[in-house]
Amino acid sequence: MTRTISAPFRAVLAEFVGTALLVTVVVGSGIAAAQLSPSDAGLQLLENSIATTFGLSVLILLFGPVSGAHFNPVVSAADWLLDRRADSRIAIGSVVAYAAAQVSGGIIGAVLANVMFDRTALEISTKVRLTTGHFIGEVVATAGLIAVIFALARTGRAALSAAAVGAYIGAAYWFTSSTSFANPAVTVGRMFSDSFAGIAPSSVLPFIGAQIVGALIGLALVVALYPDAARSADQAVVPHERHISETGSGP
Amino acid sequence: MTRTISAPFRAVLAEFVGTALLVTVVVGSGIAAAQLSPSDAGLQLLENSIATTFGLSVLILLFGPVSGAHFNPVVSAADWLLDRRADSRIAIGSVVAYAAAQVSGGIIGAVLANVMFDRTALEISTKVRLTTGHFIGEVVATAGLIAVIFALARTGRAALSAAAVGAYIGAAYWFTSSTSFANPAVTVGRMFSDSFAGIAPSSVLPFIGAQIVGALIGLALVVALYPDAARSADQAVVPHERHISETGSGP
Amino acid sequence: MTRTISAPFRAVLAEFVGTALLVTVVVGSGIAAAQLSPSDAGLQLLENSIATTFGLSVLILLFGPVSGAHFNPVVSAADWLLDRRADSRIAIGSVVAYAAAQVSGGIIGAVLANVMFDRTALEISTKVRLTTGHFIGEVVATAGLIAVIFALARTGRAALSAAAVGAYIGAAYWFTSSTSFANPAVTVGRMFSDSFAGIAPSSVLPFIGAQIVGALIGLALVVALYPDAARSADQAVVPHERHISETGSGP
Amino acid sequence: MTRTISAPFRAVLAEFVGTALLVTVVVGSGIAAAQLSPSDAGLQLLENSIATTFGLSVLILLFGPVSGAHFNPVVSAADWLLDRRADSRIAIGSVVAYAAAQVSGGIIGAVLANVMFDRTALEISTKVRLTTGHFIGEVVATAGLIAVIFALARTGRAALSAAAVGAYIGAAYWFTSSTSFANPAVTVGRMFSDSFAGIAPSSVLPFIGAQIVGALIGLALVVALYPDAARSADQAVVPHERHISETGSGP
Repeated sequence: MTRTISAPFRAVLAEFVGTALLVTVVVGSGIAAAQLSPSDAGLQLLENSIATTFGLSVLILLFGPVSGAHFNPVVSAADWLLDRRADSRIAIGSVVAYAAAQVSGGIIGAVLANVMFDRTALEISTKVRLTTGHFIGEVVATAGLIAVIFALARTGRAALSAAAVGAYIGAAYWFTSSTSFANPAVTVGRMFSDSFAGIAPSSVLPFIGAQIVGALIGLALVVALYPDAARSADQAVVPHERHISETGSGP
Repeated sequence: MTRTISAPFRAVLAEFVGTALLVTVVVGSGIAAAQLSPSDAGLQLLENSIATTFGLSVLILLFGPVSGAHFNPVVSAADWLLDRRADSRIAIGSVVAYAAAQVSGGIIGAVLANVMFDRTALEISTKVRLTTGHFIGEVVATAGLIAVIFALARTGRAALSAAAVGAYIGAAYWFTSSTSFANPAVTVGRMFSDSFAGIAPSSVLPFIGAQIVGALIGLALVVALYPDAARSADQAVVPHERHISETGSGP
Repeated sequence: MTRTISAPFRAVLAEFVGTALLVTVVVGSGIAAAQLSPSDAGLQLLENSIATTFGLSVLILLFGPVSGAHFNPVVSAADWLLDRRADSRIAIGSVVAYAAAQVSGGIIGAVLANVMFDRTALEISTKVRLTTGHFIGEVVATAGLIAVIFALARTGRAALSAAAVGAYIGAAYWFTSSTSFANPAVTVGRMFSDSFAGIAPSSVLPFIGAQIVGALIGLALVVALYPDAARSADQAVVPHERHISETGSGP
Repeated sequence: MTRTISAPFRAVLAEFVGTALLVTVVVGSGIAAAQLSPSDAGLQLLENSIATTFGLSVLILLFGPVSGAHFNPVVSAADWLLDRRADSRIAIGSVVAYAAAQVSGGIIGAVLANVMFDRTALEISTKVRLTTGHFIGEVVATAGLIAVIFALARTGRAALSAAAVGAYIGAAYWFTSSTSFANPAVTVGRMFSDSFAGIAPSSVLPFIGAQIVGALIGLALVVALYPDAARSADQAVVPHERHISETGSGP
């Protein structure tokens, strides 16, 4: 009993390990794809996107009941913005704790992928990704992600989030020009592997800027389409307890 | 409260944005596939079809509760035809409003895909697709689509529509010779990108004609197999409120 | 009212159209795959198997409530064998009617695929498929199919059959050496297209023989694992009314 | 009645046949992929991983209600470790019986795949897989597998296990460097086919060692994240009766 971890710490742990494994899935499958299918970049992206679809869906199932399975600072921030009048609102301190766990997890996940594939543990990507089209791509990708997550939360269908978010990212790898990072923590993590899924440091801040713009557009769409939904603060991405800012410990 | 958008307008907005994003998914993933897998047209279609399966399923989940997620004038018209005696019947004016939103959304979606991939915003496709086999292919594709949607609606299984319609289109990309447009709004939109998923203007009207023929065959099959189902006007494609022709505003 | 088709005829119609479309999916996607990916037979089978997985799952959803969505004479016969003491047992006459609809549907489905792809309407396949390994492959494929269908039926999980049967066939295309025909009606149909998914007439009877052997092994496994399940005669492949041998007409 | 197999024997039979078919799926689809797509190892792994995702999910559905569908000695052992205080705890003798059935099933499954594809029935793989990265890969793969299975069991979501475990393995084929064996019984079985999915005898013990380490890490994560869940001894991998160590016979 007394040795169990407190609920708030469990939530932060879930965000840390979950985001780490998400980046391991993205980067690791990218390394495997580039090694095994050297002659066709589309086939590499197909392998990478299918692995990410399956892996992300399972990670949401695995960590969701503990923390909501955000794995993404703009999701946590959007959760805070959207439910700003609700009693169950996520605390701003929790958003900061989640974001710190997500970003540090993202970096650790890249290291884990590098080590598994016998590469240098900490690389710096040289893959410059910045074009105007890519910037718009990230805006579209993140707007869609936020819209999907909070539309499901506001209509009581968060149990579908694991499959829906995985499928969304799997599609967005293809229909956006940027291959849909849509996540600042994952973007930072992917900076540390000089492989298929990497991103050069110079492209990171513009990508994060685009993600913030996209998140705001996605939120506007959610509010326009679902204006009067019940409070959903404990429904994003999947139903979970909202306890991170409480003082009590775990049961 | 008073600033929220009225329910009928929300439904039209959902059809507009949803159809736009559907065409962005189809055209955008087609451009990516053609760029990344230049040496195998089948691999391009596989990438395009998997992205569309996932993307369409998610879009139905995202917009369904607001408008039904038709994204397709023949679906809206079939809905009107099929429930012509029901009190909850969709109004003919609503069908027209939906169709206008769908077609204009389809065009905007192609523009968005073009811009994301650093192409000219508004292109005209040069991809002539008209053969006798393609015409029959479109008839089969649309008949199957209509049959699936209204069979699920008439048997109380509309909650499966998101996955089923996505999977159906993913299969029909392959088993029909026309790669299954099955949608006049999407057909018009795809005219405006000179890329993998485009269609030359000269092929558009025959394709739409085939889609209308197919829709009627699909409706006949639904009525033959499920003659005495309860009214399902608010069940296609997914359960939603039927309020577009009402005078009241949103809550 | 009086113009609606009687329930027994609706069930036979569903088996006919459903099996036809199943063969159209298999043969049509095979033709497309061979045309579009000429340089890699594995890629062709991947395209063919993914289209079949999605298409078969949707067809089961579409026709299931009317007839059970057997689409397969060994499934109908196994249904008859397995529930031979139940009041709701499928009549032997119904099995014959189902089988006739399935086989004729299978042939029509091949013709439809040929016509859509601008080929001769009725071809005879020249693809000889008979080896010892293929024979064992068909035994394994059909045993597994029967086991999956009736295990789900006997445990009240027939609502999962659409996804499960589609996924099973998608896997069995790969893990069996015969690419898993597992269905006499589909085997006969595939004889009439000289394309990727075709089968030469000389291989048809041995394949059907293997399928019968496999079905019996599958039934033995079901009875061994689930000996005391409730009657499941109206649960295979999906829950449906059992009315084909009744004299009454539809409601 | 009296001729039905006793419940404990049915559970062991389910583990034997289920693990055999799992190895048949893995090895058989690997042989087919290597034969049909000789020029791209990534495409081979994509074909192999998709077939395994679908096949494993279906096998869990098929055998789950009888035995839990462990198919994996570390899952059975983890089940024993995790619920060591529960009345419904799996008996240590049952773990041994399960493991024996799993390992012998795994070998038979490889033989079946070899025979179907007209190969020598019992081969010895020459595919050495041992590197430091592969060892870490197996640790990660097994930790994730155990975490997913018991997180779902402890939160009452074991009905999602079939889809989730299949998807997890499909992703882990790609994001781990070892292609995710994550199962001692399957590892032993794969030793007996000198084909795409084989593993040389010299790599087997290190792989199993890594799997045990990974399983312990996975269990630690489950206990940290879900410390106070209800007893879940009869929930892994899917809900089933816990009767293997009982003396009574089947109903």
